[in-house]
Amino acid sequence: MGPGPVNAHPRVLRAMSADLLGQFDPEMTGYMNQVMALYRPIFGTQNQWTMLVDGTARAGIEAALVSIVAPGDTVLVVNFGRFGLLLTEILGRIGARVETVEASWGEIVPMDAIAAGIERVQPKVVATIHGDTSTSMAQPLDGLGALCAAAGALLYVDATATIGGMAIAADRWGADIVTGGLQKCLGGPSGSAPITISDKAAALIQGRKRVEAGIRRDDISDGAGPRIGSNYFDLAMIMDYWSDKRLNHHTEATSMLYAARECARIMLGEGLEARYARHEAAGRAMTAGLRAMGLTVFGDDAHRMTNVTGVFIPQGVDGERVRTMMRDAFEIEIGTAFGPLQGRIWRIGAMGYNAMKHKVLITLGALEACLRQEGFTLPAGEAVNAAMAAWDA
Amino acid sequence: MGPGPVNAHPRVLRAMSADLLGQFDPEMTGYMNQVMALYRPIFGTQNQWTMLVDGTARAGIEAALVSIVAPGDTVLVVNFGRFGLLLTEILGRIGARVETVEASWGEIVPMDAIAAGIERVQPKVVATIHGDTSTSMAQPLDGLGALCAAAGALLYVDATATIGGMAIAADRWGADIVTGGLQKCLGGPSGSAPITISDKAAALIQGRKRVEAGIRRDDISDGAGPRIGSNYFDLAMIMDYWSDKRLNHHTEATSMLYAARECARIMLGEGLEARYARHEAAGRAMTAGLRAMGLTVFGDDAHRMTNVTGVFIPQGVDGERVRTMMRDAFEIEIGTAFGPLQGRIWRIGAMGYNAMKHKVLITLGALEACLRQEGFTLPAGEAVNAAMAAWDA
Repeated sequence: MGPGPVNAHPRVLRAMSADLLGQFDPEMTGYMNQVMALYRPIFGTQNQWTMLVDGTARAGIEAALVSIVAPGDTVLVVNFGRFGLLLTEILGRIGARVETVEASWGEIVPMDAIAAGIERVQPKVVATIHGDTSTSMAQPLDGLGALCAAAGALLYVDATATIGGMAIAADRWGADIVTGGLQKCLGGPSGSAPITISDKAAALIQGRKRVEAGIRRDDISDGAGPRIGSNYFDLAMIMDYWSDKRLNHHTEATSMLYAARECARIMLGEGLEARYARHEAAGRAMTAGLRAMGLTVFGDDAHRMTNVTGVFIPQGVDGERVRTMMRDAFEIEIGTAFGPLQGRIWRIGAMGYNAMKHKVLITLGALEACLRQEGFTLPAGEAVNAAMAAWDA
Repeated sequence: MGPGPVNAHPRVLRAMSADLLGQFDPEMTGYMNQVMALYRPIFGTQNQWTMLVDGTARAGIEAALVSIVAPGDTVLVVNFGRFGLLLTEILGRIGARVETVEASWGEIVPMDAIAAGIERVQPKVVATIHGDTSTSMAQPLDGLGALCAAAGALLYVDATATIGGMAIAADRWGADIVTGGLQKCLGGPSGSAPITISDKAAALIQGRKRVEAGIRRDDISDGAGPRIGSNYFDLAMIMDYWSDKRLNHHTEATSMLYAARECARIMLGEGLEARYARHEAAGRAMTAGLRAMGLTVFGDDAHRMTNVTGVFIPQGVDGERVRTMMRDAFEIEIGTAFGPLQGRIWRIGAMGYNAMKHKVLITLGALEACLRQEGFTLPAGEAVNAAMAAWDA
């Protein structure tokens, strides 16, 4: 019950035990095409270029940024937590000129502040996190794509912590690239990064293409734009691999593709709305339970992620000792925190396969018992009661 | 029976169906430490820094090169096939000054030619492939590390196609970084890249460290060297994640770590020498069988990889039609070829779980049947006879 990675869905684990296929076997390329189709509704998009980057969620972020940002380009980062800082870090290494609009940890950046930032720095790309698990805040994104388009900027969104748990609306937001990971609300293992790319972004990326020596073909030509600084993360080549051209690039991570496919099949089988409602119920129940225990929930209620809740470690309680007791006595993991929140809050997730009523209730009951062991006074049983009521509210 | 990816060992597939763990759970970090220990004998090394990069084999190559090569550095590439070209491609994107010593496809580069190249270009790094599946040649590496060290250069070796099938001797070669992949002779899925790093290379990499904003700690300081151009492939940060510091970087790809661990356990259980002998027997049998069919084997016999064999498509036979028939009638995949060899040779693998007597014999029997369907005249049954004799030779 941490902020991810979390337990995978058993069907996903079983899917990974299927035997491997040759990477150009028609059965394999058929699965690749299925994955493209399965992830379009999950990303809320009609984008043709919807596929996987072979690496963890962070690989998806770097692939997106290195493929659309060239050295010297100005990028505006919407920074409201650790993962906003990660965007600035990756962009700095790409050689971008990085500008930020900022919020304190526990708040989001108001849309008019982003608009003013765009006006001020005239970025080529605006990059933001959707939900930042470091602070448990979800940045509102409706309207941002239109602001970017009006300024001639592309919009990149990292949805690692929300995909599968909160609605992703790439097309409605007007996002040009959105990336995610399996290991949070999609209920799979880390190691595959779903990505969707608008036609506009794809055209820019294809314009930077340099076909690899050793696999050149007459039907694929180089673009005139600046060469992409990474081979592995070159989305132009990855698109050619996922297209009918099937131009060899890396060797697709077959078992992770099976996992990504099964995550999506489970999600679409459950239904997007039902799945988002389940995460909302879990977040509502967790928050209500923590408050009924007398604890103070961290951050702005209006923009809380549904799938992770920050809660202050109460005065006089050793946060790490409680986490250890939770793990040793109950086999439940809850999360620590980063940066300015380290030692001040715990982060408790309810993501994907873990966003279930019984898991929320058991976690709250266990936390109550551990806090009591630590000498913290709290009203016995109230947390579970409050959570049961809130789940059904 | 292609040149990889190939069928995974069933134990590896089962290992991946274990449930996930939190990334700092003591059980998880214990598995990470086990992986470090398990891969040292496989790489033939005592290197402390022996771990995994989360991505395909190509990710391991890029992580190694971007972490030791800075823009403007001179790198000498030993180029004898498609994957030598890939090294030049990745290095070009890093901004290195790339020089090469070359051999025709089907030959290796003599050691005195490499020595002359080092003398000529005074490289900071020498980079080579061990076994290049595009040509089926294995580059001899004994003595190369000493040449590099005498010239003040580091030695990088890509062992993707040989690790698990031919002896890797990082310490005896004097290699500073060796990388691999699971999907060939280790009998696992693509998506995790084992890597080993000498203390000398590790010191250089640590000297380029920049700790990420948002996770800075007092006990970890930045280096003075040029910043590494990638965040995801920054081996300094990946080492801190795999060290007792456990500084958060990416979220370790748990299921792929289970797979990598099981690949290594199976290999060490079989015994390194027995495993290499099995691959030798498979290569010997495949080559003998193809010759007994009247076909011409591609490339220099003295430097042939044991686990993949190139063979000329005979005059008048449609190579792609035979590959399709092999798959449709026998469910066996054999490989096509790249670049100058495309349409001229097939590449037939016998790697990892597929380097087995019955699989070699069945493949030869199936190929004989398909060639006969194509109207090619050959001595019936001789291929399997010859392979059976050669296996035991």
